[in-house]
Amino acid sequence: MKYMKKVVIAPDSFKGTMTSLEVCEIIDKAFKKIMPEVKTIKIPIADGGEGTTDAFLYAMGGEKIFVKTKNPLFEDIESYYAILKDKKTAIIETAAASGLTLIENRKNPLDSSTFGTGLLIKDALDKNCERIILGLGGSATNDGGAGIISALGVKLSDENNHEIIPSNRGLGKLKYIDDTKLDKRLKNCEFIIACDVENILCGQSGAAYIFGPQKGADETTVKILDENLSRYAGILREKTDRDIKNIPGTGAAGGILASLLSFPDYINCKICSGIDIILDTVNFDDIIKDADLIITGEGRFDSQSLSGKVVSGIAKRAKKQNKPVIVIAGSCGDYGDEVYDLGIQAIFTACSKIYTDFGEVKQNCFDALYKTTENILRMI
Amino acid sequence: MKYMKKVVIAPDSFKGTMTSLEVCEIIDKAFKKIMPEVKTIKIPIADGGEGTTDAFLYAMGGEKIFVKTKNPLFEDIESYYAILKDKKTAIIETAAASGLTLIENRKNPLDSSTFGTGLLIKDALDKNCERIILGLGGSATNDGGAGIISALGVKLSDENNHEIIPSNRGLGKLKYIDDTKLDKRLKNCEFIIACDVENILCGQSGAAYIFGPQKGADETTVKILDENLSRYAGILREKTDRDIKNIPGTGAAGGILASLLSFPDYINCKICSGIDIILDTVNFDDIIKDADLIITGEGRFDSQSLSGKVVSGIAKRAKKQNKPVIVIAGSCGDYGDEVYDLGIQAIFTACSKIYTDFGEVKQNCFDALYKTTENILRMI
Repeated sequence: MKYMKKVVIAPDSFKGTMTSLEVCEIIDKAFKKIMPEVKTIKIPIADGGEGTTDAFLYAMGGEKIFVKTKNPLFEDIESYYAILKDKKTAIIETAAASGLTLIENRKNPLDSSTFGTGLLIKDALDKNCERIILGLGGSATNDGGAGIISALGVKLSDENNHEIIPSNRGLGKLKYIDDTKLDKRLKNCEFIIACDVENILCGQSGAAYIFGPQKGADETTVKILDENLSRYAGILREKTDRDIKNIPGTGAAGGILASLLSFPDYINCKICSGIDIILDTVNFDDIIKDADLIITGEGRFDSQSLSGKVVSGIAKRAKKQNKPVIVIAGSCGDYGDEVYDLGIQAIFTACSKIYTDFGEVKQNCFDALYKTTENILRMI
Repeated sequence: MKYMKKVVIAPDSFKGTMTSLEVCEIIDKAFKKIMPEVKTIKIPIADGGEGTTDAFLYAMGGEKIFVKTKNPLFEDIESYYAILKDKKTAIIETAAASGLTLIENRKNPLDSSTFGTGLLIKDALDKNCERIILGLGGSATNDGGAGIISALGVKLSDENNHEIIPSNRGLGKLKYIDDTKLDKRLKNCEFIIACDVENILCGQSGAAYIFGPQKGADETTVKILDENLSRYAGILREKTDRDIKNIPGTGAAGGILASLLSFPDYINCKICSGIDIILDTVNFDDIIKDADLIITGEGRFDSQSLSGKVVSGIAKRAKKQNKPVIVIAGSCGDYGDEVYDLGIQAIFTACSKIYTDFGEVKQNCFDALYKTTENILRMI
């Protein structure tokens, strides 16, 4: 590897300490110092959660669009999404308008809604986008995606034909679904859903039971959330003749896919792994063709990383082209030789001290990652 | 560095977790797996403290000699020293017979003595050794070396001409020194003292004030210890016309050098840095001549390591021959680019987790060091 010309830097975020953009920049800085002649391609990896928009913009170029929309509790906020340089592809994070961090101290899965995300989608349609990449991570909601389709024109009403609030609680009163006003422009738009979750909509491994608690639901609330989602699935089936509730992924993001998958005549939906979406979008396989080395990384590396998405996803693609992969992790757990079989050349950690608290880790992580990278490059 | 033939592994101990022998073995094991064709030379570094004997034996070959002697409190123990393959060089640790760990719960700097170390020296003379390398680390004593010379024939008496006990407390009653029976075989023996301490015998930076507390002295005792050492220096000067008390190093190991330096007609003493002694003894400069890489390391690496002995000592010698040095440390503190100027190619740490307690570090250190080394070798 002595005479390297091109290196691809494609790390995940280091959860809790650094975004994947920051990790890219730090690794790149070490290259600029130790190997200034090497061309670096920086591809911060995002899995569809917070930071996805920025990661795509960083890797692909484009415009960040700021939009007035609603937070999960229907309050006015300004949020954002991205339109890439092709002017046709929008990147929308569910977290941007419907995320948990927007209502951190007021978690309320019963009353929160993805309505704001629907408004972002509408804005992207207004701007003639033909492809929407929707990341599902980090949502605060359990509304089965009722908010989104509501914002896009579907009328959801109770037995008295009064419109319900498109929240989980609202779904408890839902009787009628009227999709005649569903935005027709959706027909010309491809939805690519970044979803790495296999959970189904209802039951013990569903949206309420698995993800409800972290969104603020106690035991009683979880039950209600689950019942309302189940009820929604039933009404959707009556209306559309499609039973979506056992489709893997419908448990993600409070059930967003329940709504998105129920109107296939309007909404053309493809579910992909987040890592594949970004790697395909940036044409990763082409980019690495003439690369001498690929550097990836994540906050914590262990044998679980192999069944995880980012590091293993990158290693697999690199291995196909016989490209060496170096992993730089924040810290390492246990792993065996199988990691090398996957195509990983070597694994290093930026954790070089004995830390007693995580605050110290946060304080030191930038410098530690830089130094680790520098030392690796000094070895090559 | 791609086609390496010979690598020299010369680490310090990782204090608190692994001996330098263990570190050598682990690094070597990684070579055997990843680069079985590379010839490894293992030189565990010891600074004169505990483990020095084993380190020399490991690097040089020879015999471990077990001897009945006395512990610091004059109790019978079996201890050891080494005679190297040349049959002429003895390696003696002060810690082996006069060490703090021998009387861990009964620390008593007033009454403890280096008498047992003197007996080891005598045994080495009995076995015709012509060179004694004496490591000073880890002593429990503050007797100014009175125990050693006492065991070697010097008579120390009080005003009534009764022999005193050669301890610090005994020195308080010392009046007469009679060296006529000092072992004449010492004249044909070279003493090399491994001493990395610059402290002088008495006063605020002396043996009692600086090292007394860790040997169990409270404030009052420290004062007494210091007075008795000062008194001893005075009587030695009267007797020998030599004022040793301001010689750097006389504060080491409870003042052993006060005695050893006062009888130059008998005792031929050379004070050296521990790292230089071992590197010279193993002919380090010759060994690295055809080496492709030198690996060193220590428990904790930081900018202090440059003024420390092991890593900087090795790096300096390697730099003279333009040999690359890799440092593998247990953990790293802050350091800047000056470490690379010293001749260090790269620094890695075996600390790859966020540890919350040191017990966990101890449990994981072997595996962690092995994995780190393996990954480094996979990179080369």
